[in-house]
Amino acid sequence: MAKEKFSKTAVVPTREEDFPGWYQAVIKASELAEVSPARGCMIIRPWGYAIWERMKSLLDAKIKETGHENVYFPLFIPLSYMQKEADHVEGFAKECAVVTHHKLTQKEGGELVPDGKLEEPYIVRPTSETLIGEAFSKWVQSYRDLPMKINQWANVVRWEMRTRMFLRTVEILWQEGHTVHATSQEAKAHTLMMLDVYHQFVTSVLAIPVVRGEKTEIERFAGAEATYTIEALMQDGKALQCGTSHFLGQHFAKSADISFLDEHGQQQTAWTTSWGMSTRLVGALIMAHGDDNGLTLPPAIAPLQIVLLPILHQLEKKDEILDYCHQIKSQLASLEWQGEKIRVSLDDRPMKGGEKSWHWIKKGVPLRIEIGAREVDQKRVSVFQRNQEVKARQVMDQSDLSTFVVGTLTDMQETMYSESEGSLKKNTVFINSLDEFKSFFSEKKSGFARAYWCNDSDKEAALAKEFGVSVRCILSEDLSQERRCFLSGREAKAEVLFAKAY
Amino acid sequence: MAKEKFSKTAVVPTREEDFPGWYQAVIKASELAEVSPARGCMIIRPWGYAIWERMKSLLDAKIKETGHENVYFPLFIPLSYMQKEADHVEGFAKECAVVTHHKLTQKEGGELVPDGKLEEPYIVRPTSETLIGEAFSKWVQSYRDLPMKINQWANVVRWEMRTRMFLRTVEILWQEGHTVHATSQEAKAHTLMMLDVYHQFVTSVLAIPVVRGEKTEIERFAGAEATYTIEALMQDGKALQCGTSHFLGQHFAKSADISFLDEHGQQQTAWTTSWGMSTRLVGALIMAHGDDNGLTLPPAIAPLQIVLLPILHQLEKKDEILDYCHQIKSQLASLEWQGEKIRVSLDDRPMKGGEKSWHWIKKGVPLRIEIGAREVDQKRVSVFQRNQEVKARQVMDQSDLSTFVVGTLTDMQETMYSESEGSLKKNTVFINSLDEFKSFFSEKKSGFARAYWCNDSDKEAALAKEFGVSVRCILSEDLSQERRCFLSGREAKAEVLFAKAY
Repeated sequence: MAKEKFSKTAVVPTREEDFPGWYQAVIKASELAEVSPARGCMIIRPWGYAIWERMKSLLDAKIKETGHENVYFPLFIPLSYMQKEADHVEGFAKECAVVTHHKLTQKEGGELVPDGKLEEPYIVRPTSETLIGEAFSKWVQSYRDLPMKINQWANVVRWEMRTRMFLRTVEILWQEGHTVHATSQEAKAHTLMMLDVYHQFVTSVLAIPVVRGEKTEIERFAGAEATYTIEALMQDGKALQCGTSHFLGQHFAKSADISFLDEHGQQQTAWTTSWGMSTRLVGALIMAHGDDNGLTLPPAIAPLQIVLLPILHQLEKKDEILDYCHQIKSQLASLEWQGEKIRVSLDDRPMKGGEKSWHWIKKGVPLRIEIGAREVDQKRVSVFQRNQEVKARQVMDQSDLSTFVVGTLTDMQETMYSESEGSLKKNTVFINSLDEFKSFFSEKKSGFARAYWCNDSDKEAALAKEFGVSVRCILSEDLSQERRCFLSGREAKAEVLFAKAY
Repeated sequence: MAKEKFSKTAVVPTREEDFPGWYQAVIKASELAEVSPARGCMIIRPWGYAIWERMKSLLDAKIKETGHENVYFPLFIPLSYMQKEADHVEGFAKECAVVTHHKLTQKEGGELVPDGKLEEPYIVRPTSETLIGEAFSKWVQSYRDLPMKINQWANVVRWEMRTRMFLRTVEILWQEGHTVHATSQEAKAHTLMMLDVYHQFVTSVLAIPVVRGEKTEIERFAGAEATYTIEALMQDGKALQCGTSHFLGQHFAKSADISFLDEHGQQQTAWTTSWGMSTRLVGALIMAHGDDNGLTLPPAIAPLQIVLLPILHQLEKKDEILDYCHQIKSQLASLEWQGEKIRVSLDDRPMKGGEKSWHWIKKGVPLRIEIGAREVDQKRVSVFQRNQEVKARQVMDQSDLSTFVVGTLTDMQETMYSESEGSLKKNTVFINSLDEFKSFFSEKKSGFARAYWCNDSDKEAALAKEFGVSVRCILSEDLSQERRCFLSGREAKAEVLFAKAY
């Protein structure tokens, strides 16, 4: 049976054969999304969107708990606004959608052409810093208005040339938080607190372990003074940035004139932060936990945690089997796990049993429960766990099911995290020389490489160009004794994390 | 006191003095939204967005209960796709944002100009019928795939020239549902069922009475076979369309090739529907219930139902008063109303009492509870209802508060509906002649006019042009006896509803 599993998987190619091909195949097999006629944009299908909706609702609750209010800023930014912050323009000018006309006119032959040229072109927002900065300059007058903490859920557009579903798309669904503070210390603390929120969400809900740290200068957000990140390791040994939080210093406050009267009646320039996470996390979920049978969802993020599959070979028993299924469904739907009702569904579509099971295996539902005539007669159920062998059936009495389910969901959530964590540790090395660096990153599946580093941006750019490897984050700048950079041999300024990255 | 109320209102101008001016002033006073640098787009502020979020979450639950799944389609539509359905192009070509370039380049002088011209321009979606139609043509293969029922929450853009916040904006936040059915009957029934969902939502949650019916040909959605609407009456006597549901017949199914193999193995063209509601409903709330002191929110939609206002004149009693407030807050927060926990907040900001009360009056919070030293001493509270005189204080024992609050919220919800319904009835007339029509619609505040009508589109267009009056909907086509059109004197085809409209 084990042989059959390995000789035939639901997803072709396998991870081993072709990881990028496997990734696209999982998205298709689990019906998460598909490409759209608009280049680099996605059609997010019901299963993909349900995962995103769950991410949104859980993170939104955290964002509100930490005192932020949701707002909505416009999709369009007048061109002149983009120019206010010089670094910001440079960061986004090369990849933005420009609206130049406001209608279409039909030519003689019937062809539609753009018409009604705008006096000033509009940019489709790549991020809302500039518009929000202007609003802050009006809303913030006195120290009593601070801190001001807002967030928005929105679509943003970055005209990427090489796109990949969920990971790098032209249109991105995301959340962007923006705050204003009276002091540098408070703004910096807030930046790190939001990184904590992301950290907590990605590790405890998505069951993905991450490494956290500050970005180097060349990986920093356009216009930020410091960018902090959480970085996860995918199964192919590449890093994926899962969320960033930016300490913007006074850059945007100065360019947008965000200032306030302090308690002593003095006019002061404010300090701002911004932070975001996006549909990219769906990609992280696929590549952190998926296997050669498709998606594997941690119970905390799964839109459905349990699916009931009636086996209806014996048509004369159909009503009895369905009655029993409904009874099991009510029993499970009344249970709570992690403070929420368990999400359970009954799939009674007229399909072949095997086909139906595979449908839900590919979608990554944590538990499948099969119920046929034998289960009804014996008041038992057959349970299958997504993170075990496909055919590993666990038969139990109905009376034991509730306890089993609650315990197993907890166990699966923890196991998925600890297995990923084990893999992250196993695939992290310490690099002492360029030879070790070359050898590690020439492997088909590399991983995370820690090293002492001189913080030389030119050398960093050269490594990126030659090996496709970047500094994912600074792990520590507090070196207990003098260390030497693995590359330059000069005094090291920090210990950093290198990886190939998405 | 009553005199003072009428001589000084929180909102200037009053509804009587200048209704459109009052509308804008309420949006400002209650901090719902403000204009943005992008023409005709809004910045939706926290209070406005909280109302919209509540609308979304309540309606989303209904949409899911009725078997729809959420999806997300791209913001951009390639120009060629817009051309697929001829009526649809005509309906939207005159007012759409066109993306023609994908980057910006800095010229010598530093000026940024659009660069990277696209081979095919993209339209920012005015609605997603065309892209969704194409996806349906792939997803629907067999009768087993039907009905297919999806919905999306998204931003859409229509380049309106005359904009007004919430009512007519260039960028609109909305929900658009799309379904595919095997038969005309089923599609039509679904169209009407979704109109019911909107009807139920607007009347029971927003406490706004509506009239429902089908649109005439000239008011129909571009490409639809029938459009159904719910129409509300604003306080200035104008109608506001609150939601529409479209039976698209086979128009989009034919242009997008949505077909399926039926049970007999025959290829059949499918039938589709679409339906939507938008941020416009925030405008409806303002104009249906607002008064000269600002917004008035029905408890079911209010982001906050109760605000606690400590009166902190006597500084030595501050801690005692705040302790008592927290105790009242816990008491109220544990209560349930309409199946949800009551939403209560404590405003302990250091502001003058009057200023703070007016802040929440203007925002329309249903109940305010003032707590000062006297209330603490006597274990009492002072309650103020937003739909009563500003100074009408109701003093009661703490022990009576819970029962009072639950009963009063129900009473306010019902009273706000029945008062609006009374006003709708009072402002609806029956018109028998053009003279009556002219006289009714020349009044400063007109209203709804019912009349028998010959269904002549040319005459309908002429009435719209001359009097700014349109047929809001067809009330009945089932005339029990022969009736004459009030205008043409010819045989009437229907009883319709006329009004000036937003």
